[in-house]
Amino acid sequence: MKIEDLILVSVDDHVVEPPDLFDGHISARYAERAPKIVTKDDGTNAWVFEGQEATNVGLNAVAGRPPDEYGVEPTRFSEMRPGCYDIDERIRDMNANGVAASLNFPSFPQFCGQYFARAADKELALAVLRAYNDWHVDEWCGTHPGRMIPLAIPPIWDPHLMADEVRRMAAKGCHAVSFSENPEKLGLPSLHNDHWDPFWQACSETNTVVCLHIGSSSQVVVTSIEAPVDTMITLQPMNIVQAAADLVWSPVLRKFPDLTLALSEGGIGWVPYFLERVDYVYKNHRGWTHQDFGDKLPSEVFLDRVVTCFIDDGFGVENRHRLNIDMITWECDFPHSDSTWPSSPEALGKYLGGVPDQEIAKITHENALRVFSFDLHKHLPGEQATVGALRALAADVDLGYRSSARLRKEGTEAVTMLDLARQLPTSS
Amino acid sequence: MKIEDLILVSVDDHVVEPPDLFDGHISARYAERAPKIVTKDDGTNAWVFEGQEATNVGLNAVAGRPPDEYGVEPTRFSEMRPGCYDIDERIRDMNANGVAASLNFPSFPQFCGQYFARAADKELALAVLRAYNDWHVDEWCGTHPGRMIPLAIPPIWDPHLMADEVRRMAAKGCHAVSFSENPEKLGLPSLHNDHWDPFWQACSETNTVVCLHIGSSSQVVVTSIEAPVDTMITLQPMNIVQAAADLVWSPVLRKFPDLTLALSEGGIGWVPYFLERVDYVYKNHRGWTHQDFGDKLPSEVFLDRVVTCFIDDGFGVENRHRLNIDMITWECDFPHSDSTWPSSPEALGKYLGGVPDQEIAKITHENALRVFSFDLHKHLPGEQATVGALRALAADVDLGYRSSARLRKEGTEAVTMLDLARQLPTSS
Repeated sequence: MKIEDLILVSVDDHVVEPPDLFDGHISARYAERAPKIVTKDDGTNAWVFEGQEATNVGLNAVAGRPPDEYGVEPTRFSEMRPGCYDIDERIRDMNANGVAASLNFPSFPQFCGQYFARAADKELALAVLRAYNDWHVDEWCGTHPGRMIPLAIPPIWDPHLMADEVRRMAAKGCHAVSFSENPEKLGLPSLHNDHWDPFWQACSETNTVVCLHIGSSSQVVVTSIEAPVDTMITLQPMNIVQAAADLVWSPVLRKFPDLTLALSEGGIGWVPYFLERVDYVYKNHRGWTHQDFGDKLPSEVFLDRVVTCFIDDGFGVENRHRLNIDMITWECDFPHSDSTWPSSPEALGKYLGGVPDQEIAKITHENALRVFSFDLHKHLPGEQATVGALRALAADVDLGYRSSARLRKEGTEAVTMLDLARQLPTSS
Repeated sequence: MKIEDLILVSVDDHVVEPPDLFDGHISARYAERAPKIVTKDDGTNAWVFEGQEATNVGLNAVAGRPPDEYGVEPTRFSEMRPGCYDIDERIRDMNANGVAASLNFPSFPQFCGQYFARAADKELALAVLRAYNDWHVDEWCGTHPGRMIPLAIPPIWDPHLMADEVRRMAAKGCHAVSFSENPEKLGLPSLHNDHWDPFWQACSETNTVVCLHIGSSSQVVVTSIEAPVDTMITLQPMNIVQAAADLVWSPVLRKFPDLTLALSEGGIGWVPYFLERVDYVYKNHRGWTHQDFGDKLPSEVFLDRVVTCFIDDGFGVENRHRLNIDMITWECDFPHSDSTWPSSPEALGKYLGGVPDQEIAKITHENALRVFSFDLHKHLPGEQATVGALRALAADVDLGYRSSARLRKEGTEAVTMLDLARQLPTSS
């Protein structure tokens, strides 16, 4: 298969929310207290809501920035590529990268709306969260039909409200919801607790995929404050193995046989080892741990029900037959620092040699469209959805680096976790 | 290759220390205050030393016990298989499993002697630690020459004393030392700190392999106190990936080019994914993180210098050419619960089909003998070291389960981390 003939659907990109997102989506009663963008004394932008400040962290919007200007300091909208927050520009950036459709995770509300959940006034929080979801579906996804796969944020403080919101969003055509890889780390019951059953039930009934994104426990992997940041960056994706193990051994998959979950940005190359380990533990330890998977192995349950997701993972693709070829999906991660944008087709193409066309189609788009119930081709027929066709629309998109003197760093010493902590805003 | 022709050298087993270990190894001045075995009111045995009590945790000595009696409660010597603590019986148990030679990690002193390091009187601690190491080399390894590969414990509270002990042990023929996968978790400087340089230097100069065993940070992976124990058991080996990332990005490997480290019980099937990720991070982030590996990739440095170790890992063996075939080693894990004893040859044989004999030889024994500078064949010529030859010596070894009514558990509910915590002795 030629690179220009690929059809790419990314199940993991990120929206940097524009300042006007709540306009027209929140009732007058709550409008005054909805999150607002402010410009701080140093010129950086931040969301403020109920006494909480959320800055736009540098690494979360680095597409098009020279790598020596990466960092985690707060940034300004004016320093970002407009495709981070402007839907028309985003579509142009997707075209330039040959990406037909994309599922976008939130930025300032955090992966499963932790920012909203921290508000003391939960009626306000719910109004804001619903306004956010409406904006996401109606504007971010609705402006260019067929290009953005909708994803809801749930009100994690109440599983019954979560179920209601899942059903409300499904009625609007949204079949994905972002949840936490480890709610216990957020001060909530764990994945092993039946507290969440109303939520799982609603997702099950509405064919809504539960996406567990790396970092959605609000924690990063810090081996040591002295460690180079490369250590954390290396470990962060694979750390989702903890959620994978929780899922396998929890009652969730067995109690809700129609529920599908995704390990967003988790990578795939480690999964065959993990599943072999899971089955080894089952065979060797079930005598005293009392696990029971009936006539299946736990690895089989995982493979049937868990969507695996990768950005750049040649070893995983090589071993795709140790996974479920119908549940492997691809990610672009725009505009984060691990993204392959704007050369995703070339990055992916490097290790598709020898993969049959039918399997390439599953991995690049068919699986994503099926699991997220998304009808790409209604709006974008096959021949208009290819890398070649989309790139032809974007010949005028400037793909050169845009530098910002303010973000340039001095020094050549290895950057440690401590250095990073010093860049972070003190209030977050 | 036939199973009976394999030569098996295990780089990870465990000694349960016998009560008389310090006799004749510690000077009269410290003998009174050396660790002693006591029998508690409930009949279980424990070591006591300077106010600390260390019990024999059930899972650490379950070889030969029915799986429905596994658990972490304190046990008695009389409930263990004698091969756990008696060197003559251990050799018979090794013979029955066809294992020619074995490297043994400590039990009550913890993986890198944390138990000794907690003593307030550091002169006493050093005397005890040296006595332990002398016992290990002279008795545990010396009684049956050629069968036990020696492993030292270092005095982790002082890197200069560590260097001295490494040199003293090397002079006694010991070329392995157990250290921590994350000393920061023990309240000591991290692997990134030059604090440890005298230790690395001594290991480098004496060709001593530094073994980082899973759990040697004194921490287990607990996703949730509500999680089934299977979650922790699944995750514990792969958790060594954190130490692997620390090593790759720390100055250690680059500053000490002759130093070798081993990721004991870490498994191997996840390593190719990890190394691909490491190189991706290097290429994408070095512009701002300032890492420099000269004309190499970080994955190459890892593959050259880090010994990988597995118990049962068919996927890893299948992908051995993504690793360094000269640095893959095998483990039996006797008498722990993940051990394949007494059917290790059969368990390993399952996925050696299609592996060339020369590569089987490297994985099963040649690599281990080379990296640990151990001359097996001086004492046990090739034809006497095979699975078939050793098992022929052990026809009378009883391999049936030995049950203990006291350890049998009621109930069929999934066992959680909380249940496990309740089994643990309160004083540890």
